Amino acid sequence: MIKKYIMTPGPTPISEEVMLEHARPLMHHRSPEFSKIFMAVTEKLKKLFKTKNDIFILTSSGTGAMEAAVTNSFSRGDKVLVASAGNFGERFKKISSIFNLEVISLDYEWGDAVDPADIKKVLDENPDVKGVMVQFSETSTGALNDIKAIGNIVKKYPAILIVDAISGLGASDLRTDEWGLDMVVGGSQKALSAPTGIAFISVSDKAWKLIQKSDLPRFYFDLTTAKNYSLKTPPQTPWTPGISIIVAINKALDMLLEEGLEKLFKRHRIMSLAVQKAVEKLGLRLLVEDEDKRGFSVTSIKVPEGIDAKELTRMMRVKYGVTIAGGQGKLAGKIIRIGHLGYFGIFDIIIAISALEITLNELGYKFEIGSGIAEAEKVFIENNYLD
Amino acid sequence: MIKKYIMTPGPTPISEEVMLEHARPLMHHRSPEFSKIFMAVTEKLKKLFKTKNDIFILTSSGTGAMEAAVTNSFSRGDKVLVASAGNFGERFKKISSIFNLEVISLDYEWGDAVDPADIKKVLDENPDVKGVMVQFSETSTGALNDIKAIGNIVKKYPAILIVDAISGLGASDLRTDEWGLDMVVGGSQKALSAPTGIAFISVSDKAWKLIQKSDLPRFYFDLTTAKNYSLKTPPQTPWTPGISIIVAINKALDMLLEEGLEKLFKRHRIMSLAVQKAVEKLGLRLLVEDEDKRGFSVTSIKVPEGIDAKELTRMMRVKYGVTIAGGQGKLAGKIIRIGHLGYFGIFDIIIAISALEITLNELGYKFEIGSGIAEAEKVFIENNYLD
Repeated sequence: MIKKYIMTPGPTPISEEVMLEHARPLMHHRSPEFSKIFMAVTEKLKKLFKTKNDIFILTSSGTGAMEAAVTNSFSRGDKVLVASAGNFGERFKKISSIFNLEVISLDYEWGDAVDPADIKKVLDENPDVKGVMVQFSETSTGALNDIKAIGNIVKKYPAILIVDAISGLGASDLRTDEWGLDMVVGGSQKALSAPTGIAFISVSDKAWKLIQKSDLPRFYFDLTTAKNYSLKTPPQTPWTPGISIIVAINKALDMLLEEGLEKLFKRHRIMSLAVQKAVEKLGLRLLVEDEDKRGFSVTSIKVPEGIDAKELTRMMRVKYGVTIAGGQGKLAGKIIRIGHLGYFGIFDIIIAISALEITLNELGYKFEIGSGIAEAEKVFIENNYLD
Repeated sequence: MIKKYIMTPGPTPISEEVMLEHARPLMHHRSPEFSKIFMAVTEKLKKLFKTKNDIFILTSSGTGAMEAAVTNSFSRGDKVLVASAGNFGERFKKISSIFNLEVISLDYEWGDAVDPADIKKVLDENPDVKGVMVQFSETSTGALNDIKAIGNIVKKYPAILIVDAISGLGASDLRTDEWGLDMVVGGSQKALSAPTGIAFISVSDKAWKLIQKSDLPRFYFDLTTAKNYSLKTPPQTPWTPGISIIVAINKALDMLLEEGLEKLFKRHRIMSLAVQKAVEKLGLRLLVEDEDKRGFSVTSIKVPEGIDAKELTRMMRVKYGVTIAGGQGKLAGKIIRIGHLGYFGIFDIIIAISALEITLNELGYKFEIGSGIAEAEKVFIENNYLD
């Protein structure tokens, strides 16, 4: 018997309460009973997104919602700006190119964050840019972009701002309306700690105006169709949705809103800090060097000289039951990533660090056993974790 | 306490065994543990599809897989033939038009089936047709198209044949390879009786050749990307899939294959016959008049003069807990549809007919109480239901 712990930046651990809802007999997606839950989820998501904008629930991974943002907003040949500092920034570029947009890209080191001033410069030089795309938390590195600053810039231009908040939403404060974010994309399997398979997207009035002019082809992800179905009596989705996932999300959102957003963000910040301090104490280096650029969803750790990243994650998973993530794209083999996102508490962090210590020791890495754990405990104690 | 029964052509009832699997703690989608299940599901689906072709698992409704079939196979301006005898035939037309294909449409009365000879005629007159799209079971009417005959025709032409088998697969025999079906689309929430949110698509060599030349834009539903990820070690999906649904499908497929495909088809045929005979005994008329064109997934019943279809389905649902479906598109308000697809046995049919009798009586419709039930029982007895 090996107890299993999932500590990746998605899927994240799911509470028993949410899984019990997930296992409820399915309602029909056109029934008033389901419609009530569907509307409740939409309203609760608005609290999490801090928005009065429309929010749509899509049955797909977050990538589907990223595609929806692009294909609904733009027209063939439109100029867009993608600020990329990792694997998911690259994904926005790929989607935009495939749908025949002209992409201006701002590229940063993977582990760095986007400089808002660069976005202002590009927009000044290219007044015909129709949209700006950026990640909130870049899941592949753990860096957090200053979306507030970027929002304050983009709102002064005709361009809309599309934010991939898939792994950041719920871990860090995101203010869709206050910061002027036109489209925000989220997913079920991150801070919400619900099963995989559902994505969300919010749409501002400024974005709707572009959508009305957009000529890119789309059908399954058409947001105008989604809007029309949301106005039916009872409100519904155009296609059969992931019913059991939406029912689970309803419970997950209850738990999250009951905790309260401020406490939720504090919990993520402190867990993140504990992981950072612990691994630094072990002599490891963080990928995101600048402390101010570190997000609270996932911590990327450089694998020390002489240690095989694949073997490290494999041993943690197979021998100790702890699943963490490796690097993506050009970071494959160079980093490991510990997710601390969603249904996570103090002792999950203790487990993650403990498993890392035991495995590193086994692989011959030299450090003082238990020193990481001690450091994590100190962070919780010093920060009055749950006060 | 009102016991609930879902008797729609999707979602369908789900067994406790499948729901327990659905509620298992989530595995990571890049783990060898999940990959094993993902591969097992693919192999079991091949048995159900009766194919050696590639099969891909998409996280979307069946409509997403219909879009995938179109956007992966064709190029801007390509000529395609859509044979349409209902709401889902119309959907193929819409998707094709949106993605800038030139659509030749063969339209039939809703309730009729496609005449294979018409397809031959169009292909003879239009040798440049790149693809033919047709439903197996047209969910909006319950009619079943003769896919064997259509397959035998289309395989002699350069065009590929795309079959939407979403509601037909598992209820009626479908032989992908023997009949020469190039792309077959299925869904998790129909005869499989698993939760909603996952779709399948098979791809023949003939279809792959078209895919390599296709220039339509797609990203989330790109089958070449899906193929590349399926060849990784371990095999995986490009994007985060609906993990808990795929795990449930694995169990659902076990149950279905354990029953055996011949018994599975027989069960659906006899349940379907029982519903037909019962409602005819009540003096109601079936939408699909020709017995040979009736499928085994869903029975569409014309609502008698003086009865409000909406009130009928509402009363069945609210007062008696039995959810059946109404008409779609131009059949809205004119028919009701009883699904008998998936995890259904004799006594589910008895419940459906009983609820219909009780409700019809309450709405003032005149018939001999119990006569429908008696007729259904006779069908089961005469056909040695489970032998």
